[in-house]
Amino acid sequence: MRRVLVANRGEIAVRVVRACFDEGLESVLVVSDADRDSLAARLADRVVVIGPAAAGESYLDIARVVSAAVTSDCDALHPGYGFLSERPELVEACAEAGVTFVGPPAEVMRRAGSKLGAREVAENVGIPTGAGTPGLSSLEEAIRAAEQLDNYPLLLKASAGGGGRGMTIIRAATDLEGSFVRASSEAEKAFGDGTVYMEPYIENARHIEVQVLADRHGNVVHLGERDCSAQRRYQKIVEEAPSEGLPGKLVEDIRDAAVRLARALDYEGAGTVEFLVDVAKATFIFLEVNARVQVEHPVSELVSGIDIVREQLRIADGLALSVSQDDVRLDGHAIECRLNAENAREGFLPSPGRITHWTMPQGSGVRVDSYGFEGATVQPYYDSLLAKLIVHAPSRDEAIELMARALRKVQVGGVSTTADVHLALMADEDFRSRPITTKWLEERFLPAWTQTEKGR
Amino acid sequence: MRRVLVANRGEIAVRVVRACFDEGLESVLVVSDADRDSLAARLADRVVVIGPAAAGESYLDIARVVSAAVTSDCDALHPGYGFLSERPELVEACAEAGVTFVGPPAEVMRRAGSKLGAREVAENVGIPTGAGTPGLSSLEEAIRAAEQLDNYPLLLKASAGGGGRGMTIIRAATDLEGSFVRASSEAEKAFGDGTVYMEPYIENARHIEVQVLADRHGNVVHLGERDCSAQRRYQKIVEEAPSEGLPGKLVEDIRDAAVRLARALDYEGAGTVEFLVDVAKATFIFLEVNARVQVEHPVSELVSGIDIVREQLRIADGLALSVSQDDVRLDGHAIECRLNAENAREGFLPSPGRITHWTMPQGSGVRVDSYGFEGATVQPYYDSLLAKLIVHAPSRDEAIELMARALRKVQVGGVSTTADVHLALMADEDFRSRPITTKWLEERFLPAWTQTEKGR
Repeated sequence: MRRVLVANRGEIAVRVVRACFDEGLESVLVVSDADRDSLAARLADRVVVIGPAAAGESYLDIARVVSAAVTSDCDALHPGYGFLSERPELVEACAEAGVTFVGPPAEVMRRAGSKLGAREVAENVGIPTGAGTPGLSSLEEAIRAAEQLDNYPLLLKASAGGGGRGMTIIRAATDLEGSFVRASSEAEKAFGDGTVYMEPYIENARHIEVQVLADRHGNVVHLGERDCSAQRRYQKIVEEAPSEGLPGKLVEDIRDAAVRLARALDYEGAGTVEFLVDVAKATFIFLEVNARVQVEHPVSELVSGIDIVREQLRIADGLALSVSQDDVRLDGHAIECRLNAENAREGFLPSPGRITHWTMPQGSGVRVDSYGFEGATVQPYYDSLLAKLIVHAPSRDEAIELMARALRKVQVGGVSTTADVHLALMADEDFRSRPITTKWLEERFLPAWTQTEKGR
Repeated sequence: MRRVLVANRGEIAVRVVRACFDEGLESVLVVSDADRDSLAARLADRVVVIGPAAAGESYLDIARVVSAAVTSDCDALHPGYGFLSERPELVEACAEAGVTFVGPPAEVMRRAGSKLGAREVAENVGIPTGAGTPGLSSLEEAIRAAEQLDNYPLLLKASAGGGGRGMTIIRAATDLEGSFVRASSEAEKAFGDGTVYMEPYIENARHIEVQVLADRHGNVVHLGERDCSAQRRYQKIVEEAPSEGLPGKLVEDIRDAAVRLARALDYEGAGTVEFLVDVAKATFIFLEVNARVQVEHPVSELVSGIDIVREQLRIADGLALSVSQDDVRLDGHAIECRLNAENAREGFLPSPGRITHWTMPQGSGVRVDSYGFEGATVQPYYDSLLAKLIVHAPSRDEAIELMARALRKVQVGGVSTTADVHLALMADEDFRSRPITTKWLEERFLPAWTQTEKGR
């Protein structure tokens, strides 16, 4: 491997270009017209413009992306996250073009990406999966399945979904018909697959996920778990590593389950196995596999000292993992805050525009992953993630303190950011004193924050 | 200690503000009118404008600086390097105002700052000093001393000088009178002290300096040595740690001499003991002490893992050093390139102006200490150091390679920088294959570089 096509944009494109630099690989970045002068474009060794701003005609167009890899003589392609990163069709197109895909083989991605398929594999190796139904293709099947479960509330999910899209809570039998029809057609539209399924809904849950790395030589390691319970509309807002306040045995079982599942899937590359922990019962169920690098990978990097994106490149190049499980030492506590270009006071409305002022904190244990600079543009065409502020300290308390101090140094002009929501979160007694559940941010914290803001 | 006045500007102000952040201390930055929107001003907790752009009425005005510390209720004052950093009068003014000076006491600074005084202390503890003359206050004395030395070429130096200012090589007795008169009057003008002295001039010398840290509890440690032989007009251009190609015993003796001298001076804080190594004889002589943090401190930080500026703050706060000599582990090789805002093709003419484009390399083992950003201004009133590019790798060869790759990523618009000189230097066979001497850059490398550039 000598030259890598970076098939993404924003902060993750900067991150992948950097990993290429670190590995001594040339980076070729595909950009849309809108991203010609992005930070990633400035840092990459070469830039190929592949289409207009609309992602469908650039970042989401498999033919254009693969053709850019071929014409720029790239050996490999890194998809980042989002966009085409979990599309087996891209993996296949790469294989046909003789370009190494940085990620799992197409068939592994397909199995891992199907929630029902992955659940089946998990069940085969004894990982709890929450007693869900099989795939439901008609309302009649759904009604029968709900009667059998007899345990409302239920959670309705799209098998091909991800990131919470297509998920609906069904509180009572009377909601079932409307929810099923809506979810099924939404899933058909969004993922080209209308298959949905149901499982008992856990009221007080924590989102715990395990970072795994697997090479082609049979080595699988985990880098510990992350707690990503702070969510708004199923989107993670804050992520931490490690989890706190869980029984040690439970954490061990979760980590072990992730590695077992990766092995059972013949996984290759960096991946995340997501779980829900039922706080009341101190049990866990398997949720889904994300067959790519995650937005929140830096918290695992900071506690483990392992560069996940460099490992991805090494694995794709056929090399063995640079560490064995025994070498992995998890140290201290890391927190990531996603600073979105959004106006939190206006219902988190996206806030695109030109960045007229840009000052980010500098300090030991403070990391900023971003595409921002003074004069850069937050494009209206793509997601609103502007910067990830990541801190690392010996303990969770110290990490929260450091994050608060770092957030106070963030100064961005020209676009709104969610920095002040994060600052309020770091000062929140509930957040500081005990592990939160997945509903807490949306049902408790944000309503109170909105109330306070209105009172100003 | 709770709040620190940062009495400097440019990259070192950014560096000190960062160290304050890391130590949980508030930072108050003094700025001239010209520096109101500098990066350090953006990062500091508070800014005090103390005068116009002219340094004499701002950064060099002891009364204004100390008054800013008092009115902003600072406990301590960090002077950075240059400006007032080695002025015992500032230390005394701080003491009178009840502000802790981050650096040695006035009397230690005075002794260390006088070359003749420091030489005497060095001789007392058995450190070779190059058989120099005592202070010479008349031409007759100088002639007599030169006759006694009987060993041309001789080097004429100002006792109060620093950074090469006031130094003259005397090749033969006939040059003595003119050189003496000129040097003496220049020294009188520049340092308020016309005392000069002479010592045998070493033709093939390497500039080797040792970083020391000393606290108030009697602990003195060194962080190894730096090679700063790449100089232009006695100004360092590239610095490395550790030195290469010196006999192990010689390196040990030099490090040991530095610690012995620091002890003999009752030194306190971070300091540098500079030596010249006679390459032909494999011997060394003491040169001078710099009683402050040096521009090139980051190379020692990268090989030792010790934050020198944080140690300065700890020492000033009365704390013990965070490490003992046995804890200090020196690892790999670090190189710093000083990127000056200068036009190398026009005789290194300063190139002030507004920075219209700013892209710096990002990578593991790559550090950028700078005040630059897109839209920042390189002021014409101050020195031209714009950015320090510092790399760390397992070996010198790998560090040079990494530096070259990092330099290729530097893109600065609006002002000229010396990045391409550094890039040519990293590719130079002489520089790569063997330790250079202090004259090499000016007498060999730069003339050849200028020739090549003209041929383009």
